[in-house]
Amino acid sequence: MLIIMKKEATEEELQALISKIHQTGAAEGFVSRGQFHTVIGVVGDPEKVAELPLLAMPGVERVQRVSRPFKMVSAEGHERASTVPVDGVSLGPDSFTIIAGPCAVENEEQTLESARAAKKAGAHMLRGGAYKPRTSPYSFQGLAEEGLRILATARQETGLPIVTEVLDSRDVEKVAEVADMLQIGTRNMQNFSLLKEVGLTGKPIMLKRGMNSTIEEWLMAAEHIARHGNLRIVLCERGIRTFETATRNTLDISAIPVVREESHLPVIVDPSHAAGRKSLIVPLARAAVAVGADGVMVDVHPTPETALTDGPQALVPEELYALTREIKELAVRMGRTV
Amino acid sequence: MLIIMKKEATEEELQALISKIHQTGAAEGFVSRGQFHTVIGVVGDPEKVAELPLLAMPGVERVQRVSRPFKMVSAEGHERASTVPVDGVSLGPDSFTIIAGPCAVENEEQTLESARAAKKAGAHMLRGGAYKPRTSPYSFQGLAEEGLRILATARQETGLPIVTEVLDSRDVEKVAEVADMLQIGTRNMQNFSLLKEVGLTGKPIMLKRGMNSTIEEWLMAAEHIARHGNLRIVLCERGIRTFETATRNTLDISAIPVVREESHLPVIVDPSHAAGRKSLIVPLARAAVAVGADGVMVDVHPTPETALTDGPQALVPEELYALTREIKELAVRMGRTV
Amino acid sequence: MLIIMKKEATEEELQALISKIHQTGAAEGFVSRGQFHTVIGVVGDPEKVAELPLLAMPGVERVQRVSRPFKMVSAEGHERASTVPVDGVSLGPDSFTIIAGPCAVENEEQTLESARAAKKAGAHMLRGGAYKPRTSPYSFQGLAEEGLRILATARQETGLPIVTEVLDSRDVEKVAEVADMLQIGTRNMQNFSLLKEVGLTGKPIMLKRGMNSTIEEWLMAAEHIARHGNLRIVLCERGIRTFETATRNTLDISAIPVVREESHLPVIVDPSHAAGRKSLIVPLARAAVAVGADGVMVDVHPTPETALTDGPQALVPEELYALTREIKELAVRMGRTV
Amino acid sequence: MLIIMKKEATEEELQALISKIHQTGAAEGFVSRGQFHTVIGVVGDPEKVAELPLLAMPGVERVQRVSRPFKMVSAEGHERASTVPVDGVSLGPDSFTIIAGPCAVENEEQTLESARAAKKAGAHMLRGGAYKPRTSPYSFQGLAEEGLRILATARQETGLPIVTEVLDSRDVEKVAEVADMLQIGTRNMQNFSLLKEVGLTGKPIMLKRGMNSTIEEWLMAAEHIARHGNLRIVLCERGIRTFETATRNTLDISAIPVVREESHLPVIVDPSHAAGRKSLIVPLARAAVAVGADGVMVDVHPTPETALTDGPQALVPEELYALTREIKELAVRMGRTV
Repeated sequence: MLIIMKKEATEEELQALISKIHQTGAAEGFVSRGQFHTVIGVVGDPEKVAELPLLAMPGVERVQRVSRPFKMVSAEGHERASTVPVDGVSLGPDSFTIIAGPCAVENEEQTLESARAAKKAGAHMLRGGAYKPRTSPYSFQGLAEEGLRILATARQETGLPIVTEVLDSRDVEKVAEVADMLQIGTRNMQNFSLLKEVGLTGKPIMLKRGMNSTIEEWLMAAEHIARHGNLRIVLCERGIRTFETATRNTLDISAIPVVREESHLPVIVDPSHAAGRKSLIVPLARAAVAVGADGVMVDVHPTPETALTDGPQALVPEELYALTREIKELAVRMGRTV
Repeated sequence: MLIIMKKEATEEELQALISKIHQTGAAEGFVSRGQFHTVIGVVGDPEKVAELPLLAMPGVERVQRVSRPFKMVSAEGHERASTVPVDGVSLGPDSFTIIAGPCAVENEEQTLESARAAKKAGAHMLRGGAYKPRTSPYSFQGLAEEGLRILATARQETGLPIVTEVLDSRDVEKVAEVADMLQIGTRNMQNFSLLKEVGLTGKPIMLKRGMNSTIEEWLMAAEHIARHGNLRIVLCERGIRTFETATRNTLDISAIPVVREESHLPVIVDPSHAAGRKSLIVPLARAAVAVGADGVMVDVHPTPETALTDGPQALVPEELYALTREIKELAVRMGRTV
Repeated sequence: MLIIMKKEATEEELQALISKIHQTGAAEGFVSRGQFHTVIGVVGDPEKVAELPLLAMPGVERVQRVSRPFKMVSAEGHERASTVPVDGVSLGPDSFTIIAGPCAVENEEQTLESARAAKKAGAHMLRGGAYKPRTSPYSFQGLAEEGLRILATARQETGLPIVTEVLDSRDVEKVAEVADMLQIGTRNMQNFSLLKEVGLTGKPIMLKRGMNSTIEEWLMAAEHIARHGNLRIVLCERGIRTFETATRNTLDISAIPVVREESHLPVIVDPSHAAGRKSLIVPLARAAVAVGADGVMVDVHPTPETALTDGPQALVPEELYALTREIKELAVRMGRTV
Repeated sequence: MLIIMKKEATEEELQALISKIHQTGAAEGFVSRGQFHTVIGVVGDPEKVAELPLLAMPGVERVQRVSRPFKMVSAEGHERASTVPVDGVSLGPDSFTIIAGPCAVENEEQTLESARAAKKAGAHMLRGGAYKPRTSPYSFQGLAEEGLRILATARQETGLPIVTEVLDSRDVEKVAEVADMLQIGTRNMQNFSLLKEVGLTGKPIMLKRGMNSTIEEWLMAAEHIARHGNLRIVLCERGIRTFETATRNTLDISAIPVVREESHLPVIVDPSHAAGRKSLIVPLARAAVAVGADGVMVDVHPTPETALTDGPQALVPEELYALTREIKELAVRMGRTV
């Protein structure tokens, strides 16, 4: 932590700050006097220091954090990325995991057909939403418990582990009974009650990046989960909100290598929600493999033209077969097992 | 709704679309054939039509919505903006409401001192958070129920109605017992479970804009609350996330007149969280009055240098007195009662 | 300047850095060793140090600048904001200046009618573009020299000083013959050749903020002009590009007080180009006065429905009269002369 | 073009609009009356219609464009992407082109060493800036004509074609004498005078995307060049400005397949300027190949720690050799010749 003093800061203000830092009992402040500014370097327990309202103290112009704020999810101390096992599937640096399924569980037939397509395509897991967060209260909100029942049937038939979103702390237990992996959606990335609740389950968690969140905030959201004893977290980049309207969101492909430098958690890419339309999914999935992601998650639907949510971005089964064939081949060339 | 067909769309694809629209039993499609594109104008119940996955149908290039998606919160049919009464305070177009208080309830003394300062300054309501959403799991998370108890004491002493944030559906009942107005924070604007739950209370709601949300999404979030029978909603603009880092967020001052055109709901401004530092609060509060907002909400703290959250943006009591004096005067000149 | 070393940085790397800094002959480095990181505080001539490619040196993790990079336009050493005189009009902290006119000079009649409206409304200066930067090469590109001639006529008739945009270094001399103030448009804010050229004229310059530029970059663009001997610069905030599409751009109203803190240059607001539509101009102009801007610039057109550029945002003369009356009154109440 | 009328629009306003459209002599308007809105579909010459200030006419609520605004650079009518030959190098869909070199030409030795490294690495072209646009007027601004002379020497020695930036219309001729390809930088993407001037040279142009520009604006900038008779244009994606600060800019990888759908022009990726730091360049270059880009442009410098610009993002020669080896192999697997 570095404290940059105002030019007009007095010696008393400087000394008051240093006392304040020493009073934490966990840090020391070292003063460097420059031509224009005096700077205090703070050395010690960054958490204790972070709690001090330094910016509000007289004489302080700016405070610069030096250490990263996350700890349990940090790459530090991890020579390699972690692997998160999900019922026989290993999400991590050695493998490349393909997750496919419908955006929403609409009915048994549509879900089973999608699940069979995922299975036939060689996908490793099935996705599908029983609870759907929708901008409009007048849109389809998901089948809820009936949707969970259908997902259980799909798992029984295909053997594919299930990842499905949970929206409400009160539903976590119910969803966790059926799901092999709980998904936190982009709109709930900073729903801290929900993060705590899924942290307490100990189940594998897929944490989608908030569409407006920095990578640091994303890792801090993971830290919220980790803090409740659960480090079985897989990050999922799904596009951020920018001024560009040619795509639904802007896939931040650089986030993959940045996360790799900062955290030991596996990270996958959802090209379907980033792009919002089918024609971009194949090139973006290829890019995801090449940039070093640990997997992709794509939408598939037997009849996208009848889909209740996100039809334009769903692949039909044949397209999914072609996609998985191609990206598995590319992943093998990148040194991964599929 | 307008459907723009691809240049290469066939007559069969066109007819299939028109049949699909007619099958809703609630809409009709009219065809205009242009030099390059054929366009279908869809007339009828927009909700039924919106449910059709038109973009995923063969031959469709783009779909343009013509009507606004919100209904209960729409300005249509409202000659004037609504007024939301909160325990004797009227938030609406005739008055200008000042809400002040600490960002977080830290202890009884700090809260009561802030409440007295708010009262003395002539503020109309007291703000203060008992539950705090924090990016870091290692930061102060609020006093929870103890915080609610302190807020109840502050109300009893000062008579000021209380607005306080609720983060979790499970806490809504508990918070509603103490609060006169429930606040939905920026990170929960699209927490639809929570919106439903506060909608069901029938209590006045302050809905802060998501820092990454468009005005339309914000009004749709209000529609989620309204749909559960509660139209006592006050919107609060608090800055959006942009590339500019000179301020914590970018206050979208234009959002006030835009909301005024689109919705009948009152709308206020929170300059403290937008700016993130004290020196900008006075000019931004003035701008809020001048642009036509129905109120402002500002942070006050007896000793910002000890604040556990957001100290740099808190006014001290004397600064609050000066601010309220000035903006009340300006509000009166704008034709409002204070 | 602060240099944060990597955890694994060696003592040799540290010493190499310190030597490098000392070799500039203009700075010294002070070392603070922390629990996790070692930090070098650099004291001395910031420009010389800024030229060092510190980030590319072994062992360096991050470099934090402490001083602001601008000098001639900095608020430092200026007790009050500057005033820029433009042919009898004073742009600065004591007055409030209204600039009105058509977006583009389309023909003599339209320009003269707009100029008369501006005059009658009590505006202090006339705006109007002879050279127009247009996204499409197929749109109207301005009347060029014929436009300058028309502007000269308008000045002769109304006596209003003229501000008009220059797009190309080769046109600066020609435009400067007619214009009382040269405008640098949002798309040219970082056209450094053009900034140099207008700097050399010594004429008053209106520097519009780049729609994607930070406030710091904007002030650095002003510094480019100032460096060539011209400090007669007025800044103009005109909206930045964000994810919000309800307005053409997002007016960054906070930029006014931020500029006030950082620079001595006057700063005005262009609500027309920020909003992109007429109904928002009155509230935004009011907000501009209230927040402390030194003026506003608005579009007016005798018949907006025939305008060749930006018709939807142009006021008709009657609307301009009402606007200037109202904002002059507000400006007087804010302690300014009009 | 679709015109959506206000609900309260009168029949007279509707008829006035239709007359106005017919008066162009090049278009017709077809009326569809809906439950809430009346819509006019405009069929005919889109340019003539685009010139009408429809939004400013009474009764008009919104105008929706249906056709794309670009023509010469449009994918329409092009079964495959174009190839742009640059002195023996073919930039297009069959090959994969690697451009390497220093960000800035600093002196003869540094440039020649970089050029030799590029040659040895198997790069196809040499980049290097003689004119540098710099945020600060106090930073190194490039060697100008001396830089051009050094580039000519580097070409003579290595035989690599040169791409170099031109900043000012007045320098175009001079730069074109030395350069095989003229680069328009991100800050000048909408410097329309400069676009015209480089269009007139007939030389191959590399058009970098404005860091704040939509893909449509980028293609329109290309249309400006094309309109002056020059279709030898290669687009270069180099990152856009977003709220994320973990990278210098956010590489918009989706822009590559979007451009491929909309335009016949080749498109390459500059991972160095997008990422701003070395460690991300290899993964991003791989992603560029996989997503379907036609080439990459990377910074190389013999001693990045002495670089006058952008040292942190420059590869050293050995890193460049490894990179080109890897991405050439990947490009071959994607079916391209290298």
